[in-house]
Amino acid sequence: MNGKDSPFLSRLDTTAKDIDELLDRLLSAGPEPGETSRPQRLIEAMRYSSLGGGKRFRPFLVVECAALFHVPRQHGLMAGAALECVHCYSLVHDDLPAMDNDALRRGQPTTHKAFDEATAILAGDSLLTFAFDVLSRRETHPDPAVRIELVSALARAAGIGGMAGGQMLDLAAEGRFAGNRPLRLDENEVRMLQAMKTGALLRFACEAGGMLGAATPLQRKALERYGSAVGQAFQIADDLLDLEGDPALVGKSTGKDAVAGKATMVGVLGRPGAKERLRQLVAEAEQALAPFGRDAAILVEGARFVADRHA
Amino acid sequence: MNGKDSPFLSRLDTTAKDIDELLDRLLSAGPEPGETSRPQRLIEAMRYSSLGGGKRFRPFLVVECAALFHVPRQHGLMAGAALECVHCYSLVHDDLPAMDNDALRRGQPTTHKAFDEATAILAGDSLLTFAFDVLSRRETHPDPAVRIELVSALARAAGIGGMAGGQMLDLAAEGRFAGNRPLRLDENEVRMLQAMKTGALLRFACEAGGMLGAATPLQRKALERYGSAVGQAFQIADDLLDLEGDPALVGKSTGKDAVAGKATMVGVLGRPGAKERLRQLVAEAEQALAPFGRDAAILVEGARFVADRHA
Repeated sequence: MNGKDSPFLSRLDTTAKDIDELLDRLLSAGPEPGETSRPQRLIEAMRYSSLGGGKRFRPFLVVECAALFHVPRQHGLMAGAALECVHCYSLVHDDLPAMDNDALRRGQPTTHKAFDEATAILAGDSLLTFAFDVLSRRETHPDPAVRIELVSALARAAGIGGMAGGQMLDLAAEGRFAGNRPLRLDENEVRMLQAMKTGALLRFACEAGGMLGAATPLQRKALERYGSAVGQAFQIADDLLDLEGDPALVGKSTGKDAVAGKATMVGVLGRPGAKERLRQLVAEAEQALAPFGRDAAILVEGARFVADRHA
Repeated sequence: MNGKDSPFLSRLDTTAKDIDELLDRLLSAGPEPGETSRPQRLIEAMRYSSLGGGKRFRPFLVVECAALFHVPRQHGLMAGAALECVHCYSLVHDDLPAMDNDALRRGQPTTHKAFDEATAILAGDSLLTFAFDVLSRRETHPDPAVRIELVSALARAAGIGGMAGGQMLDLAAEGRFAGNRPLRLDENEVRMLQAMKTGALLRFACEAGGMLGAATPLQRKALERYGSAVGQAFQIADDLLDLEGDPALVGKSTGKDAVAGKATMVGVLGRPGAKERLRQLVAEAEQALAPFGRDAAILVEGARFVADRHA
């Protein structure tokens, strides 16, 4: 299957190109009002960490969820670009020697390998900060109340009670702190860890579409359910890929999570159990979108894609 | 001179207490809507990095600049608390082994020494993210347009074109990257580096007061001039302290910047020249505030305090 055969893959691809172009523009402009200058090495490290790689699945979710409400595409792209900055910052920091100590990401040297640790820390910090700059711009939405709602939701999805907190729990589960051994998490604990570490940003992606589109509370609830199911499916598929995937396709070393004894649903449920859960989650994602009818077909495809992906 | 003799010191102290209380409350609440849970170790590291230390001079500037426009004190405190989160995150990350590799801060072990590197990276990330959560709350200002203006200005002051960019320039000036030697920066280069690294947040503090208070463009210009002069004075005083200060009072090792060959105005202008510049900057800060008359007396005192401080 390639982009020509599948409307889903072709739209995923179009959004990825649009996001790359937008990030490229945002990161080659400047200094903006309020900025003094943009040091070249730091911009290069930010560009290296955020351009030319990745399926841009999170921005795709923002754009397509917003499209349910006929939101101008540029608004979805701006919010999606901000979200992608947060996602990329998290990869840069997670890869650091003090964290997961990874040398490869998408088949390329990680940022601290391509540059150095100090630059990688600052590039991550700057991408995170830049996300809020992007969200605060009029180009994201004309109504400041909508923009501030996006800021609040992204901060909570990314921060202590979301992604960063999830990474903390993950490190603790690996027994990384003095006097700790690797923890055996039960199903609920693993679910919470992953709802934070990877789920929160994916949920935000879907909710952001509803915020941009002034969705009703019922519609917001539907998007939240969809986002939550897709988030869980995404993580299980990722864990299965880690066990079964081809390193050349995945673009990083595989089997590493199992070796590190990482807390995964595959570990808790076993491989067949995890695959069954994946099917349930796709069904749940589809069901959540029922109120939107045919308009949501591409998002249903998105949920299936997440469950079936091979890289 | 102590708090009882000086209205300035007494108000600085009151604001510091209020900010400590507010940060304590914000960081002991939760999970807030949109958060899943707040991992204990991460909250502890964030609290360790942000509570019980520091003069809270940046929040003081926010609160007192806002007071010029009779802004309710709580709004200034909220914006000040957000700014302090950004300041504290920057200290945590700057202290990391890959950056300045400092073991002491305010006489206490730095966050990565008290916890570990991974936790310190995540605590910094989470404090930065939390700042935008705090700014986005209604408690900061009832008008979303004001809140989003604060978000935009803080992102630009803290990010690639501000503080983070300044730290990058500082590392480059020290010759920290492959093939580089320490650079000899001229006066303009040092001024730009410092306008970014420390000046941007101090300028933001003053501008934020104007944003909260719906200041006129002329009043904003005055606050910007004041903030810029105070920012420069702050850095020169810091560099002089590093050369002349008592380590027991300063709470960190002194003489280190000179050893590291850091780019400072003292290095460029010499000690007498730097002291003369300090006097000029205090005069400039005072002059900028002239349009506010007696209402600005406490801010004039603030500029003098910055120039004269011994710790």
